[in-house]
Amino acid sequence: GSADISRGQSKAAMCTACHGANGISVLPDYPNLAGQKAGYLEQALKAYRDGQRQHQIMAPMAQGLTDQEITDVAAFYASQQQAPTAAAATVASQ
Amino acid sequence: GSADISRGQSKAAMCTACHGANGISVLPDYPNLAGQKAGYLEQALKAYRDGQRQHQIMAPMAQGLTDQEITDVAAFYASQQQAPTAAAATVASQ
Repeated sequence: GSADISRGQSKAAMCTACHGANGISVLPDYPNLAGQKAGYLEQALKAYRDGQRQHQIMAPMAQGLTDQEITDVAAFYASQQQAPTAAAATVASQ
Repeated sequence: GSADISRGQSKAAMCTACHGANGISVLPDYPNLAGQKAGYLEQALKAYRDGQRQHQIMAPMAQGLTDQEITDVAAFYASQQQAPTAAAATVASQ
């Protein structure tokens, strides 16, 4: 079905611990999700859900998600603005 | 060694076909790299290089890269501004 960003936002509550509420991750090893391609995010979540892509933390996170929930969460993070100011973005290495 | 963004930019010439010269990917299935965490990009490139992460296109791309080249390419894309305008970022699904 079509993406519902607000539903995605509530579903993404469990993601905020690592990926941040605004999609800017809390640690350099975790990817930022803000403004990422929705198609890529859906693909990654499905790969974690179906075991195509292995990850100790992401596998259980993606486990019970339906396709619709994946679509919503992906659309939510894709809609997040990544770098409010140009200065923030040009920090060479986060 | 420390990251050299301009060296990373030239090294990233081969990445632009899919990930775009400015790190905004050309297709919804390919991830944007602009403003991504440098640490995450390094981890991903090493995983593709060492076969920890499988991908038909990325494996050969990462194959011959040295750690320093990976550090430079990661720093280059991490330094790219992702969304020049807020409007661009709030497009619900790319």
